[in-house]
Amino acid sequence: MNTTFPQHAAHVSVHQLADAIHATVQGPTDVLISGISQLDHAMGSDLSFVLKPTFHAAAKLSQAGAFVVGQPIPDEPRPQLIVPHPLIAIATLAQRFFAPPLPPRGIHPSAILGVEGRIGPEASIGALVTIGDRVQIGARATIYANVHIGNDVIIGDDCTLYPQVSVLDRCVLGNRVILHSGTVIGSDGFGYTQLDSRHHKILQLGNVFLEDDVELGANVTVDRGTFGSTRIKRGTKVDNQVQIAHNVVIGEDCILVAQVGIAGSTTLGNNVMIGGQAGLVDHITVGDNVRIAAGSGVTNDVSPGFIVGGRPAVDHATWRKSQVIQYQLPELRKEILSLRKRIALLESRLTETHDSP
Amino acid sequence: MNTTFPQHAAHVSVHQLADAIHATVQGPTDVLISGISQLDHAMGSDLSFVLKPTFHAAAKLSQAGAFVVGQPIPDEPRPQLIVPHPLIAIATLAQRFFAPPLPPRGIHPSAILGVEGRIGPEASIGALVTIGDRVQIGARATIYANVHIGNDVIIGDDCTLYPQVSVLDRCVLGNRVILHSGTVIGSDGFGYTQLDSRHHKILQLGNVFLEDDVELGANVTVDRGTFGSTRIKRGTKVDNQVQIAHNVVIGEDCILVAQVGIAGSTTLGNNVMIGGQAGLVDHITVGDNVRIAAGSGVTNDVSPGFIVGGRPAVDHATWRKSQVIQYQLPELRKEILSLRKRIALLESRLTETHDSP
Amino acid sequence: MNTTFPQHAAHVSVHQLADAIHATVQGPTDVLISGISQLDHAMGSDLSFVLKPTFHAAAKLSQAGAFVVGQPIPDEPRPQLIVPHPLIAIATLAQRFFAPPLPPRGIHPSAILGVEGRIGPEASIGALVTIGDRVQIGARATIYANVHIGNDVIIGDDCTLYPQVSVLDRCVLGNRVILHSGTVIGSDGFGYTQLDSRHHKILQLGNVFLEDDVELGANVTVDRGTFGSTRIKRGTKVDNQVQIAHNVVIGEDCILVAQVGIAGSTTLGNNVMIGGQAGLVDHITVGDNVRIAAGSGVTNDVSPGFIVGGRPAVDHATWRKSQVIQYQLPELRKEILSLRKRIALLESRLTETHDSP
Repeated sequence: MNTTFPQHAAHVSVHQLADAIHATVQGPTDVLISGISQLDHAMGSDLSFVLKPTFHAAAKLSQAGAFVVGQPIPDEPRPQLIVPHPLIAIATLAQRFFAPPLPPRGIHPSAILGVEGRIGPEASIGALVTIGDRVQIGARATIYANVHIGNDVIIGDDCTLYPQVSVLDRCVLGNRVILHSGTVIGSDGFGYTQLDSRHHKILQLGNVFLEDDVELGANVTVDRGTFGSTRIKRGTKVDNQVQIAHNVVIGEDCILVAQVGIAGSTTLGNNVMIGGQAGLVDHITVGDNVRIAAGSGVTNDVSPGFIVGGRPAVDHATWRKSQVIQYQLPELRKEILSLRKRIALLESRLTETHDSP
Repeated sequence: MNTTFPQHAAHVSVHQLADAIHATVQGPTDVLISGISQLDHAMGSDLSFVLKPTFHAAAKLSQAGAFVVGQPIPDEPRPQLIVPHPLIAIATLAQRFFAPPLPPRGIHPSAILGVEGRIGPEASIGALVTIGDRVQIGARATIYANVHIGNDVIIGDDCTLYPQVSVLDRCVLGNRVILHSGTVIGSDGFGYTQLDSRHHKILQLGNVFLEDDVELGANVTVDRGTFGSTRIKRGTKVDNQVQIAHNVVIGEDCILVAQVGIAGSTTLGNNVMIGGQAGLVDHITVGDNVRIAAGSGVTNDVSPGFIVGGRPAVDHATWRKSQVIQYQLPELRKEILSLRKRIALLESRLTETHDSP
Repeated sequence: MNTTFPQHAAHVSVHQLADAIHATVQGPTDVLISGISQLDHAMGSDLSFVLKPTFHAAAKLSQAGAFVVGQPIPDEPRPQLIVPHPLIAIATLAQRFFAPPLPPRGIHPSAILGVEGRIGPEASIGALVTIGDRVQIGARATIYANVHIGNDVIIGDDCTLYPQVSVLDRCVLGNRVILHSGTVIGSDGFGYTQLDSRHHKILQLGNVFLEDDVELGANVTVDRGTFGSTRIKRGTKVDNQVQIAHNVVIGEDCILVAQVGIAGSTTLGNNVMIGGQAGLVDHITVGDNVRIAAGSGVTNDVSPGFIVGGRPAVDHATWRKSQVIQYQLPELRKEILSLRKRIALLESRLTETHDSP
């Protein structure tokens, strides 16, 4: 089976690349580049990048045709594009020259659209998409195949919804929101009231509001508010398989790594970072700039700027110390047993001392 | 971008609302209500609710047009509907007056149906639904767009399957079952047998049986039995992203919070509650009325009525005590070092004492 | 509601079954069997199996019509098929005689296919499948309803993609790959670069490569490489709701149990086993034949052959010991307090001793 494929048709000169990122070039500028790759996989037509001088040796061994670097690689004849922030430069070049082509604009004839909707100019609605009634979709939005959009949904400009996404009734997306495959926006919150030892559903009448520049990974779930909105604010990025319960509010520019779970009505400030598989209980408040270690269980409010870890989460220094000592416990227990023996011996000797004279 | 939308067309008088929940009304009864909201988001046309007298101050500040209360708010001129259980009353009113309209009844022309099926009266089959052969769907069931139902599936009356759900071959759903988007019923159990250091698949020939009134959140996975059924019994409610392995049996009226994982052939009694992100190993038995703390790792049987927590899970009191002490470990270690020094000093003094006379 | 259904039409004689697994038969060979079941659910037309002599009593009580056994059940008149590895024999029989029928071959008229694709002989493309441009699908592949396959995807022979799977642009599947419902192959890696305290997306230009005989459970997510491939090697089996980040490499014949998460660029050797809900940080290397306990948090490289557990993961023996002692901490603390008192008493007595003479 042939597993190669034409990744990019484009050929761009080093000169053009350098222009786009305002780089100083060392070496020839007429080399043609057709892709970006990491050092160890790059071929002669690839641009690669060196984030730190410690990778200079790897760069020498790489087959790459040119490099983006922070500091020049010594004695390197191949073209080097020197910039202050190589990773940002690479991100810029990837977006500008090597982005895969967008799907065709317009509405695929197999899509099923409801009534009274409005679709902006240059939007793309893929095959077998289902869209409810009174839906607004902004300019240049890309809705891939097999997506479902419910009634009364509003989707801003330049959004991207990957295949198999569901955005359910009355949810609202700002501009440039990206939702990866299998993600569900607006499932019911987990709300019941108990009567006669049975669970009775509380209808979930609210919605979800995702502000501008929010990106959610694959198979994420965001429940609608019971009343009011579950809200994720501008610029927050969420990794795969994260669970966000009803009426949670997440601030701006947060980072939630994969498999995090946030229980109902919990509120996060801005610039919060949460490591993978951490869990936050319901109805707590996490301040701005808080960092929560991977795998933590947060059971209380966290003040702005704190770094916390552990189950239950405590301040980072306390958690780290106790983490180390947990594995010394067998030694500590031995030590205690040894001390007990020495004390018993002292006690008996002292009794002798008392008795002997 | 305009992000408002008409949530409910209905206008209901306080008199009608009070009638439906057998409430005593204090204040005017002719006020018209068009929605339900929490105190801090309510507008003048909204009904809100006060679960405890501690929220009376917040109620005074709320813009709500009327309140459901357990105890009357003092000096409040707006209508108050007094009931013994405000949350149950609100749930009842939400369901009765403010539920979003159901999708149109009947079969969308774009749905693909197999042969020899039977669809009950007043059912709704949405756009681009795929249904296998010999499928039975009960009366008034609502199957949303993009759902897949396999061959020989049986779905009871009044079930709701949200967009992008899969119910695979031969699985059975009782009445009033609700499955949220992205949930998969009847994926293969994770069963292999090892031979020559390779893993050989054991065909998973069983099915899944979800009894009456079961509700599963979004992106839940329930594997089919290897042979026989994986079964979730009447009234159990499961939150988003829960994983239920092959041949698990879950009792009646259980609550499983988000991201819980239950390994193969484990059995739960009735009224079990499991906190978020807890994991249960395979082939254990958990008794009736057990409560398992969030994040626990249950590795052994749990007797009925026990409350357990921790990794590995132990009884609640033991777990809580050791949780507190884990963060005092650095202090305890210092204490031990200090005791060792004092003992050494005692030992040398005692030797002096012995030697001195 | 009638919840029975015809699972298998086939009737096979004990003689035929024994032939297929080279079994020695004790008892009659003309009994007809129509299914396989576990001991406690088997009916008279079912074959069941006994993995250990400890289940002989249960076998006597079972209604099964015949048994596959390692050692014969004493005084049992029903037919017994004696083989060295009963579970492997059952897996073989299930596959050979009792596998559910495959979906019809060919392309369902409602499927939407792109241009320049190639579909192998005897493949099955289900209802409402969407397939991008330049896609290659191998012989005898089964693509169930509502699957999405992106542009430039390559799928080998004999693959099975269950309903609602997404395989996104440029990803590659070997032969006999199985993907369960809701699984996403090729979502974007979680890669951003920070500038002016905002997160800027790094385009994810790589792909995912799943080698021969890989099986992924339901609602699994595998991100594409930033550049280059995320790769899962031959024969590895992955359970439901596992998250595999960009540029991860997983060796051959590994087992990853449900809800495991592996962060970016981490590399696993061959025959690695990871228990449920474990998490691995980014950029670490795990050697061949490593076993990682359920719920562990692996934060460092693990040498080949090691067994590790805990958060952070350490060698198995250390982890187990400290796990036991964590719950003895309240006792240890009491012991320390008691020792402190005894030391204080000794100190005062010794002072008396010194002073008294």
